[in-house]
Amino acid sequence: MKIEGKNQVIEAIKNDVTINKILIDKNFATRRDDVINLAKKNSIRVEFLPKKVLDEQSATGHHQGYIAEAIDFEYSSVQDILQNPKSDKGAFVVLLDGVEDPHNLGAIIRSCECAGVDGIIIPKVRACQVNETVVRTSAGATTHMKIARVANLKTAIDELKNAGLWIYALELGGENIYSQNLTGPIGIVIGSEGSGIKQSLRTYCDGILTLPMKGSVNSLNASVSAGIAIFEILRQRG
Amino acid sequence: MKIEGKNQVIEAIKNDVTINKILIDKNFATRRDDVINLAKKNSIRVEFLPKKVLDEQSATGHHQGYIAEAIDFEYSSVQDILQNPKSDKGAFVVLLDGVEDPHNLGAIIRSCECAGVDGIIIPKVRACQVNETVVRTSAGATTHMKIARVANLKTAIDELKNAGLWIYALELGGENIYSQNLTGPIGIVIGSEGSGIKQSLRTYCDGILTLPMKGSVNSLNASVSAGIAIFEILRQRG
Repeated sequence: MKIEGKNQVIEAIKNDVTINKILIDKNFATRRDDVINLAKKNSIRVEFLPKKVLDEQSATGHHQGYIAEAIDFEYSSVQDILQNPKSDKGAFVVLLDGVEDPHNLGAIIRSCECAGVDGIIIPKVRACQVNETVVRTSAGATTHMKIARVANLKTAIDELKNAGLWIYALELGGENIYSQNLTGPIGIVIGSEGSGIKQSLRTYCDGILTLPMKGSVNSLNASVSAGIAIFEILRQRG
Repeated sequence: MKIEGKNQVIEAIKNDVTINKILIDKNFATRRDDVINLAKKNSIRVEFLPKKVLDEQSATGHHQGYIAEAIDFEYSSVQDILQNPKSDKGAFVVLLDGVEDPHNLGAIIRSCECAGVDGIIIPKVRACQVNETVVRTSAGATTHMKIARVANLKTAIDELKNAGLWIYALELGGENIYSQNLTGPIGIVIGSEGSGIKQSLRTYCDGILTLPMKGSVNSLNASVSAGIAIFEILRQRG
Protein backbone atom coordinates (compact mmCIF):
# COMPACT_ATOMS: atom_id res chain seq x y z
CA MET A 1 0.00 0.00 0.00
CA LYS A 2 1.24 3.49 -0.84
CA ILE A 3 1.05 6.46 1.49
CA GLU A 4 1.47 9.74 -0.37
CA GLY A 5 2.02 13.34 0.68
CA LYS A 6 4.42 14.85 3.22
CA ASN A 7 2.09 15.01 6.22
CA GLN A 8 0.64 11.58 5.50
CA VAL A 9 4.11 10.01 5.39
CA ILE A 10 5.17 11.80 8.60
CA GLU A 11 1.98 10.69 10.36
CA ALA A 12 2.54 7.11 9.19
CA ILE A 13 6.13 7.04 10.51
CA LYS A 14 5.08 8.59 13.82
CA ASN A 15 2.30 6.03 14.14
CA ASP A 16 4.64 3.11 13.55
CA VAL A 17 3.08 2.01 10.29
CA THR A 18 5.32 -0.70 8.89
CA ILE A 19 7.09 1.02 6.01
CA ASN A 20 9.17 -0.84 3.49
CA LYS A 21 10.83 2.22 1.97
CA ILE A 22 10.15 5.86 1.18
CA LEU A 23 10.51 7.32 -2.30
CA ILE A 24 11.47 11.00 -2.23
CA ASP A 25 11.88 13.53 -4.99
CA LYS A 26 15.65 13.76 -5.55
CA ASN A 27 15.45 17.55 -5.57
CA PHE A 28 14.78 17.32 -1.85
CA ALA A 29 17.92 15.22 -1.14
CA THR A 30 20.13 18.11 -0.12
CA ARG A 31 17.70 20.14 1.92
CA ARG A 32 16.73 19.91 5.59
CA ASP A 33 13.65 17.79 5.48
CA ASP A 34 11.40 16.39 8.20
CA VAL A 35 10.65 13.19 6.33
CA ILE A 36 14.34 12.44 5.67
CA ASN A 37 15.22 13.12 9.30
CA LEU A 38 12.39 10.95 10.62
CA ALA A 39 13.25 8.14 8.21
CA LYS A 40 16.89 8.19 9.35
CA LYS A 41 15.87 8.19 13.00
CA ASN A 42 13.60 5.19 12.42
CA SER A 43 16.03 3.34 10.13
CA ILE A 44 13.65 3.42 7.20
CA ARG A 45 15.20 3.09 3.77
CA VAL A 46 14.95 6.16 1.53
CA GLU A 47 15.30 6.25 -2.25
CA PHE A 48 15.81 9.56 -4.04
CA LEU A 49 14.23 9.46 -7.48
CA PRO A 50 13.33 11.91 -10.25
CA LYS A 51 9.90 13.52 -9.75
CA LYS A 52 8.84 11.79 -12.98
CA VAL A 53 9.28 8.37 -11.39
CA LEU A 54 7.22 9.41 -8.38
CA ASP A 55 4.52 10.67 -10.74
CA GLU A 56 4.44 7.23 -12.33
CA GLN A 57 4.34 5.43 -8.98
CA SER A 58 1.67 7.71 -7.55
CA ALA A 59 -1.84 6.34 -7.28
CA THR A 60 -3.41 9.65 -6.32
CA GLY A 61 -1.35 12.21 -8.21
CA HIS A 62 -0.91 14.12 -4.92
CA HIS A 63 2.43 12.77 -3.68
CA GLN A 64 4.10 16.18 -3.06
CA GLY A 65 7.44 14.42 -3.58
CA TYR A 66 6.91 11.70 -0.94
CA ILE A 67 5.62 8.15 -1.36
CA ALA A 68 5.96 5.59 1.43
CA GLU A 69 5.53 1.94 0.57
CA ALA A 70 3.70 0.57 3.56
CA ILE A 71 2.69 -2.93 4.38
CA ASP A 72 -1.00 -3.61 3.92
CA PHE A 73 -3.56 -2.66 6.52
CA GLU A 74 -4.01 -5.30 9.19
CA TYR A 75 -7.63 -5.98 9.89
CA SER A 76 -8.84 -7.02 13.34
CA SER A 77 -11.51 -9.56 14.26
CA VAL A 78 -14.86 -8.73 15.86
CA GLN A 79 -13.58 -10.34 19.07
CA ASP A 80 -10.46 -8.10 18.99
CA ILE A 81 -12.79 -5.10 18.89
CA LEU A 82 -14.88 -6.33 21.82
CA GLN A 83 -11.86 -6.83 24.06
CA ASN A 84 -11.08 -4.07 26.56
CA PRO A 85 -13.65 -1.39 25.70
CA LYS A 86 -12.19 2.12 26.04
CA SER A 87 -15.16 3.41 28.05
CA ASP A 88 -16.53 2.08 31.35
CA LYS A 89 -19.95 2.33 29.66
CA GLY A 90 -19.01 -0.73 27.60
CA ALA A 91 -18.18 -1.36 23.95
CA PHE A 92 -19.00 1.19 21.24
CA VAL A 93 -18.89 -0.29 17.73
CA VAL A 94 -19.74 1.20 14.32
CA LEU A 95 -20.93 -1.09 11.50
CA LEU A 96 -20.93 0.13 7.88
CA ASP A 97 -23.38 -1.50 5.50
CA GLY A 98 -21.78 -0.90 2.12
CA VAL A 99 -20.15 2.55 2.33
CA GLU A 100 -18.54 2.86 -1.10
CA ASP A 101 -16.81 6.23 -1.26
CA PRO A 102 -13.26 6.09 0.16
CA HIS A 103 -13.52 9.74 1.26
CA ASN A 104 -16.60 8.90 3.29
CA LEU A 105 -14.94 5.82 4.79
CA GLY A 106 -11.83 7.83 5.65
CA ALA A 107 -13.90 10.61 7.25
CA ILE A 108 -15.96 8.07 9.25
CA ILE A 109 -12.76 6.41 10.54
CA ARG A 110 -11.54 9.88 11.61
CA SER A 111 -14.81 10.54 13.44
CA CYS A 112 -14.66 7.13 15.17
CA GLU A 113 -11.08 7.74 16.27
CA CYS A 114 -11.99 11.16 17.71
CA ALA A 115 -15.02 9.76 19.54
CA GLY A 116 -13.20 6.83 21.16
CA VAL A 117 -15.10 4.17 19.22
CA ASP A 118 -13.69 0.68 19.95
CA GLY A 119 -13.85 -0.58 16.40
CA ILE A 120 -15.47 -0.53 12.97
CA ILE A 121 -16.96 -3.51 11.12
CA ILE A 122 -17.19 -3.46 7.32
CA PRO A 123 -18.37 -6.11 4.84
CA LYS A 124 -15.78 -7.90 2.68
CA VAL A 125 -17.76 -7.35 -0.53
CA ARG A 126 -19.68 -4.50 -2.16
CA ALA A 127 -18.04 -1.96 0.14
CA CYS A 128 -14.95 0.22 0.15
CA GLN A 129 -11.98 -1.49 1.85
CA VAL A 130 -9.14 0.27 3.67
CA ASN A 131 -7.15 1.43 0.66
CA GLU A 132 -4.65 4.23 0.07
CA THR A 133 -7.29 6.92 -0.39
CA VAL A 134 -8.99 5.84 2.84
CA VAL A 135 -5.70 5.94 4.75
CA ARG A 136 -4.93 9.39 3.37
CA THR A 137 -8.41 10.77 3.99
CA SER A 138 -8.40 9.36 7.51
CA ALA A 139 -5.46 11.66 8.37
CA GLY A 140 -3.69 8.93 10.28
CA ALA A 141 -6.77 7.58 12.09
CA THR A 142 -6.53 4.13 10.41
CA THR A 143 -3.43 3.37 12.44
CA HIS A 144 -5.38 3.85 15.69
CA MET A 145 -8.63 2.14 14.82
CA LYS A 146 -9.49 -1.55 14.89
CA ILE A 147 -11.35 -2.44 11.70
CA ALA A 148 -12.84 -5.89 11.15
CA ARG A 149 -13.83 -7.21 7.73
CA VAL A 150 -16.64 -9.78 7.79
CA ALA A 151 -18.36 -11.96 5.22
CA ASN A 152 -21.75 -11.34 6.79
CA LEU A 153 -22.85 -8.36 8.86
CA LYS A 154 -25.74 -10.32 10.42
CA THR A 155 -23.31 -12.84 11.90
CA ALA A 156 -21.26 -9.95 13.24
CA ILE A 157 -24.40 -8.42 14.77
CA ASP A 158 -25.10 -11.79 16.45
CA GLU A 159 -21.62 -11.69 17.99
CA LEU A 160 -22.22 -8.15 19.24
CA LYS A 161 -25.66 -9.00 20.63
CA ASN A 162 -24.20 -12.01 22.43
CA ALA A 163 -21.66 -9.67 24.00
CA GLY A 164 -24.49 -7.53 25.35
CA LEU A 165 -24.48 -4.69 22.80
CA TRP A 166 -27.71 -3.00 21.75
CA ILE A 167 -27.72 -2.58 17.96
CA TYR A 168 -29.26 0.48 16.30
CA ALA A 169 -29.69 1.36 12.64
CA LEU A 170 -29.18 5.02 11.67
CA GLU A 171 -32.00 5.62 9.19
CA LEU A 172 -34.99 7.76 8.38
CA GLY A 173 -38.32 6.92 9.95
CA GLY A 174 -37.12 5.78 13.38
CA GLU A 175 -36.97 7.27 16.86
CA ASN A 176 -35.50 10.74 17.33
CA ILE A 177 -31.88 10.02 18.32
CA TYR A 178 -31.99 12.77 20.96
CA SER A 179 -34.85 11.09 22.86
CA GLN A 180 -33.15 7.69 23.14
CA ASN A 181 -30.94 6.47 25.95
CA LEU A 182 -27.71 5.42 24.26
CA THR A 183 -25.45 5.11 27.30
CA GLY A 184 -24.91 1.32 27.35
CA PRO A 185 -22.82 -1.01 25.21
CA ILE A 186 -23.84 -0.07 21.68
CA GLY A 187 -23.43 -0.84 17.99
CA ILE A 188 -24.68 1.56 15.34
CA VAL A 189 -25.21 0.56 11.71
CA ILE A 190 -24.60 3.21 9.04
CA GLY A 191 -25.97 2.65 5.52
CA SER A 192 -24.45 3.19 2.11
CA GLU A 193 -24.51 6.58 0.35
CA GLY A 194 -27.05 5.55 -2.23
CA SER A 195 -29.45 3.08 -0.70
CA GLY A 196 -29.03 3.23 3.06
CA ILE A 197 -29.19 0.07 5.15
CA LYS A 198 -30.46 -3.13 3.56
CA GLN A 199 -34.04 -3.90 4.68
CA SER A 200 -33.11 -7.36 5.99
CA LEU A 201 -30.33 -5.87 8.11
CA ARG A 202 -32.45 -2.99 9.40
CA THR A 203 -35.09 -5.35 10.77
CA TYR A 204 -32.29 -7.33 12.42
CA CYS A 205 -31.38 -4.32 14.58
CA ASP A 206 -32.89 -3.63 18.01
CA GLY A 207 -34.03 -0.15 17.02
CA ILE A 208 -33.82 2.64 14.45
CA LEU A 209 -32.32 6.04 15.28
CA THR A 210 -33.16 9.10 13.19
CA LEU A 211 -31.63 12.56 13.08
CA PRO A 212 -34.37 15.20 13.25
CA MET A 213 -34.59 17.26 10.05
CA LYS A 214 -35.87 20.82 9.67
CA GLY A 215 -35.34 21.50 5.97
CA SER A 216 -36.92 20.53 2.68
CA VAL A 217 -34.09 18.65 0.96
CA ASN A 218 -33.10 16.89 4.19
CA SER A 219 -30.26 14.83 2.81
CA LEU A 220 -27.02 14.70 4.75
CA ASN A 221 -23.65 13.55 3.47
CA ALA A 222 -23.09 9.95 4.70
CA SER A 223 -19.96 10.77 6.70
CA VAL A 224 -21.60 13.85 8.23
CA SER A 225 -24.69 11.95 9.45
CA ALA A 226 -22.43 9.21 10.81
CA GLY A 227 -20.33 11.83 12.62
CA ILE A 228 -23.39 13.49 14.17
CA ALA A 229 -24.75 10.15 15.45
CA ILE A 230 -21.36 8.98 16.75
CA PHE A 231 -20.84 12.23 18.66
CA GLU A 232 -24.39 12.13 20.09
CA ILE A 233 -23.57 8.69 21.52
CA LEU A 234 -20.28 10.11 22.88
CA ARG A 235 -22.18 13.04 24.43
CA GLN A 236 -24.65 10.74 26.17
CA ARG A 237 -21.91 8.45 27.47
CA GLY A 238 -20.27 11.47 29.06
CA MET B 1 -26.12 34.24 -18.61
CA LYS B 2 -24.67 32.99 -21.91
CA ILE B 3 -21.00 32.20 -22.35
CA GLU B 4 -20.02 32.07 -26.01
CA GLY B 5 -16.96 30.86 -27.91
CA LYS B 6 -14.84 27.75 -27.55
CA ASN B 7 -12.17 29.06 -25.20
CA GLN B 8 -14.68 30.99 -23.12
CA VAL B 9 -16.78 27.87 -22.57
CA ILE B 10 -13.71 25.76 -21.70
CA GLU B 11 -12.57 28.42 -19.25
CA ALA B 12 -16.03 28.51 -17.64
CA ILE B 13 -16.11 24.74 -17.16
CA LYS B 14 -12.60 24.72 -15.72
CA ASN B 15 -13.56 27.48 -13.30
CA ASP B 16 -16.60 25.56 -12.09
CA VAL B 17 -19.12 28.08 -13.34
CA THR B 18 -22.56 26.53 -12.79
CA ILE B 19 -23.63 25.49 -16.28
CA ASN B 20 -27.14 24.31 -17.07
CA LYS B 21 -26.34 23.01 -20.56
CA ILE B 22 -24.06 23.63 -23.53
CA LEU B 23 -25.39 24.17 -27.03
CA ILE B 24 -22.97 22.91 -29.69
CA ASP B 25 -23.08 23.11 -33.48
CA LYS B 26 -24.25 19.65 -34.56
CA ASN B 27 -21.54 19.50 -37.20
CA PHE B 28 -19.06 19.12 -34.30
CA ALA B 29 -20.88 16.11 -32.81
CA THR B 30 -18.76 13.46 -34.45
CA ARG B 31 -15.34 14.99 -34.04
CA ARG B 32 -12.87 14.90 -31.15
CA ASP B 33 -13.63 18.06 -29.30
CA ASP B 34 -12.27 19.55 -26.08
CA VAL B 35 -15.57 21.08 -25.06
CA ILE B 36 -17.50 17.83 -25.56
CA ASN B 37 -14.88 15.88 -23.59
CA LEU B 38 -14.84 18.38 -20.74
CA ALA B 39 -18.64 18.49 -20.62
CA LYS B 40 -18.78 14.69 -20.37
CA LYS B 41 -16.16 14.63 -17.65
CA ASN B 42 -18.11 17.21 -15.65
CA SER B 43 -21.54 15.68 -16.31
CA ILE B 44 -22.80 18.78 -18.11
CA ARG B 45 -25.68 18.29 -20.55
CA VAL B 46 -24.85 18.94 -24.21
CA GLU B 47 -27.37 19.68 -26.98
CA PHE B 48 -26.30 19.43 -30.60
CA LEU B 49 -28.20 21.95 -32.73
CA PRO B 50 -28.01 23.37 -36.27
CA LYS B 51 -25.67 26.36 -36.55
CA LYS B 52 -28.71 28.47 -37.45
CA VAL B 53 -30.26 27.90 -34.02
CA LEU B 54 -27.01 28.91 -32.32
CA ASP B 55 -26.91 32.04 -34.45
CA GLU B 56 -30.38 32.90 -33.16
CA GLN B 57 -29.47 32.16 -29.53
CA SER B 58 -26.23 34.08 -29.67
CA ALA B 59 -26.06 37.44 -27.96
CA THR B 60 -22.68 38.38 -29.37
CA GLY B 61 -22.70 36.76 -32.81
CA HIS B 62 -19.29 35.21 -32.00
CA HIS B 63 -20.29 31.82 -30.66
CA GLN B 64 -17.93 29.71 -32.85
CA GLY B 65 -20.40 26.84 -32.44
CA TYR B 66 -20.43 26.87 -28.61
CA ILE B 67 -22.88 28.52 -26.23
CA ALA B 68 -22.98 27.60 -22.53
CA GLU B 69 -26.05 28.52 -20.51
CA ALA B 70 -24.63 29.39 -17.11
CA ILE B 71 -26.54 29.83 -13.90
CA ASP B 72 -25.66 32.72 -11.67
CA PHE B 73 -26.08 31.68 -8.06
CA GLU B 74 -28.00 34.45 -6.37
CA TYR B 75 -26.30 35.44 -3.18
CA SER B 76 -28.27 36.99 -0.34
CA SER B 77 -27.25 39.81 1.98
CA VAL B 78 -26.60 39.43 5.70
CA GLN B 79 -29.82 41.38 6.33
CA ASP B 80 -31.77 38.92 4.08
CA ILE B 81 -30.51 36.10 6.29
CA LEU B 82 -31.52 37.87 9.50
CA GLN B 83 -35.09 38.45 8.35
CA ASN B 84 -37.76 36.01 9.56
CA PRO B 85 -35.72 33.42 11.47
CA LYS B 86 -37.11 29.91 10.98
CA SER B 87 -37.04 29.11 14.70
CA ASP B 88 -38.79 30.98 17.53
CA LYS B 89 -35.42 30.75 19.32
CA GLY B 90 -34.10 33.42 16.93
CA ALA B 91 -31.64 33.48 14.06
CA PHE B 92 -29.14 30.64 13.49
CA VAL B 93 -26.29 31.62 11.15
CA VAL B 94 -23.17 29.74 10.04
CA LEU B 95 -20.03 31.68 9.03
CA LEU B 96 -17.23 29.99 7.09
CA ASP B 97 -13.74 31.44 7.43
CA GLY B 98 -12.05 30.28 4.25
CA VAL B 99 -13.40 26.78 3.55
CA GLU B 100 -11.64 25.89 0.30
CA ASP B 101 -12.79 22.42 -0.73
CA PRO B 102 -16.03 22.52 -2.77
CA HIS B 103 -17.01 19.09 -1.41
CA ASN B 104 -16.75 20.41 2.14
CA LEU B 105 -18.71 23.55 1.26
CA GLY B 106 -21.40 21.46 -0.45
CA ALA B 107 -21.65 19.09 2.52
CA ILE B 108 -21.85 22.01 4.98
CA ILE B 109 -24.66 23.62 2.95
CA ARG B 110 -26.51 20.25 3.10
CA SER B 111 -26.07 20.07 6.87
CA CYS B 112 -27.29 23.66 7.28
CA GLU B 113 -30.37 22.96 5.16
CA CYS B 114 -31.21 19.86 7.20
CA ALA B 115 -30.75 21.69 10.49
CA GLY B 116 -32.93 24.67 9.59
CA VAL B 117 -30.06 27.17 9.60
CA ASP B 118 -31.23 30.61 8.43
CA GLY B 119 -28.19 31.37 6.29
CA ILE B 120 -24.50 30.97 5.59
CA ILE B 121 -21.91 33.75 5.29
CA ILE B 122 -18.73 33.23 3.26
CA PRO B 123 -15.85 35.58 2.40
CA LYS B 124 -15.54 36.87 -1.17
CA VAL B 125 -11.86 36.02 -1.40
CA ARG B 126 -9.60 33.12 -0.46
CA ALA B 127 -12.59 30.80 -0.06
CA CYS B 128 -14.59 28.46 -2.23
CA GLN B 129 -17.58 30.17 -3.86
CA VAL B 130 -20.86 28.50 -4.83
CA ASN B 131 -19.73 26.80 -8.04
CA GLU B 132 -20.90 23.82 -10.06
CA THR B 133 -19.20 21.24 -7.79
CA VAL B 134 -20.69 22.86 -4.69
CA VAL B 135 -24.19 22.88 -6.19
CA ARG B 136 -23.85 19.21 -7.15
CA THR B 137 -22.34 18.13 -3.81
CA SER B 138 -25.04 19.99 -1.91
CA ALA B 139 -27.64 17.62 -3.40
CA GLY B 140 -30.03 20.47 -4.10
CA ALA B 141 -29.55 22.27 -0.79
CA THR B 142 -28.11 25.42 -2.45
CA THR B 143 -31.55 26.26 -3.85
CA HIS B 144 -33.00 26.34 -0.32
CA MET B 145 -30.23 28.12 1.55
CA LYS B 146 -29.50 31.83 1.79
CA ILE B 147 -25.78 32.40 1.28
CA ALA B 148 -24.22 35.83 1.69
CA ARG B 149 -20.81 36.77 0.32
CA VAL B 150 -19.00 39.48 2.25
CA ALA B 151 -15.78 41.41 1.82
CA ASN B 152 -15.07 41.26 5.55
CA LEU B 153 -16.27 38.65 8.02
CA LYS B 154 -15.67 41.00 10.97
CA THR B 155 -18.12 43.53 9.56
CA ALA B 156 -20.63 40.71 9.10
CA ILE B 157 -20.09 39.62 12.71
CA ASP B 158 -20.77 43.23 13.79
CA GLU B 159 -24.09 43.11 11.93
CA LEU B 160 -24.97 39.81 13.61
CA LYS B 161 -23.97 41.08 17.06
CA ASN B 162 -26.08 44.20 16.52
CA ALA B 163 -29.01 41.92 15.72
CA GLY B 164 -28.55 40.19 19.09
CA LEU B 165 -26.73 37.05 17.98
CA TRP B 166 -24.09 35.46 20.17
CA ILE B 167 -21.07 34.53 18.03
CA TYR B 168 -19.05 31.38 18.71
CA ALA B 169 -15.92 30.04 17.04
CA LEU B 170 -15.72 26.25 16.58
CA GLU B 171 -12.10 25.51 17.47
CA LEU B 172 -9.81 23.51 19.69
CA GLY B 173 -9.03 24.79 23.16
CA GLY B 174 -12.41 26.32 24.04
CA GLU B 175 -15.41 25.33 26.17
CA ASN B 176 -16.91 21.85 25.75
CA ILE B 177 -19.79 22.45 23.33
CA TYR B 178 -22.05 20.12 25.34
CA SER B 179 -21.73 22.21 28.50
CA GLN B 180 -22.73 25.50 26.83
CA ASN B 181 -26.21 26.94 26.53
CA LEU B 182 -26.71 27.51 22.80
CA THR B 183 -30.46 28.06 22.71
CA GLY B 184 -30.55 31.76 21.81
CA PRO B 185 -29.91 33.64 18.55
CA ILE B 186 -26.55 32.29 17.45
CA GLY B 187 -23.79 32.52 14.86
CA ILE B 188 -21.08 29.88 14.64
CA VAL B 189 -17.79 30.40 12.81
CA ILE B 190 -16.19 27.36 11.13
CA GLY B 191 -12.52 27.52 10.08
CA SER B 192 -10.73 26.40 6.95
CA GLU B 193 -9.53 22.82 6.43
CA GLY B 194 -5.87 23.65 6.82
CA SER B 195 -5.50 26.48 9.28
CA GLY B 196 -8.78 26.81 11.17
CA ILE B 197 -10.12 30.23 12.10
CA LYS B 198 -7.87 33.27 11.76
CA GLN B 199 -6.58 34.42 15.15
CA SER B 200 -7.95 37.96 14.72
CA LEU B 201 -11.41 36.60 13.93
CA ARG B 202 -11.39 34.08 16.76
CA THR B 203 -10.73 36.76 19.34
CA TYR B 204 -13.59 38.77 17.81
CA CYS B 205 -16.08 36.02 18.75
CA ASP B 206 -17.99 35.92 22.05
CA GLY B 207 -16.75 32.43 22.87
CA ILE B 208 -15.02 29.32 21.59
CA LEU B 209 -16.82 25.97 21.36
CA THR B 210 -14.86 22.73 21.23
CA LEU B 211 -15.93 19.19 20.43
CA PRO B 212 -14.62 16.81 23.10
CA MET B 213 -12.07 14.34 21.70
CA LYS B 214 -11.25 10.87 23.00
CA GLY B 215 -8.64 9.66 20.49
CA SER B 216 -4.99 10.28 19.73
CA VAL B 217 -5.15 11.72 16.20
CA ASN B 218 -8.23 13.81 17.04
CA SER B 219 -8.67 15.47 13.68
CA LEU B 220 -12.16 15.62 12.20
CA ASN B 221 -13.05 16.33 8.59
CA ALA B 222 -14.11 20.00 8.32
CA SER B 223 -17.63 19.27 7.12
CA VAL B 224 -18.11 16.56 9.75
CA SER B 225 -17.10 18.81 12.65
CA ALA B 226 -19.35 21.55 11.26
CA GLY B 227 -22.23 19.06 11.02
CA ILE B 228 -21.76 17.85 14.59
CA ALA B 229 -21.74 21.42 15.96
CA ILE B 230 -24.71 22.52 13.85
CA PHE B 231 -26.79 19.55 15.01
CA GLU B 232 -25.80 20.08 18.65
CA ILE B 233 -27.20 23.61 18.36
CA LEU B 234 -30.35 22.17 16.72
CA ARG B 235 -30.67 19.61 19.53
CA GLN B 236 -30.43 22.30 22.21
CA ARG B 237 -32.93 24.55 20.44
CA GLY B 238 -35.33 21.58 20.42
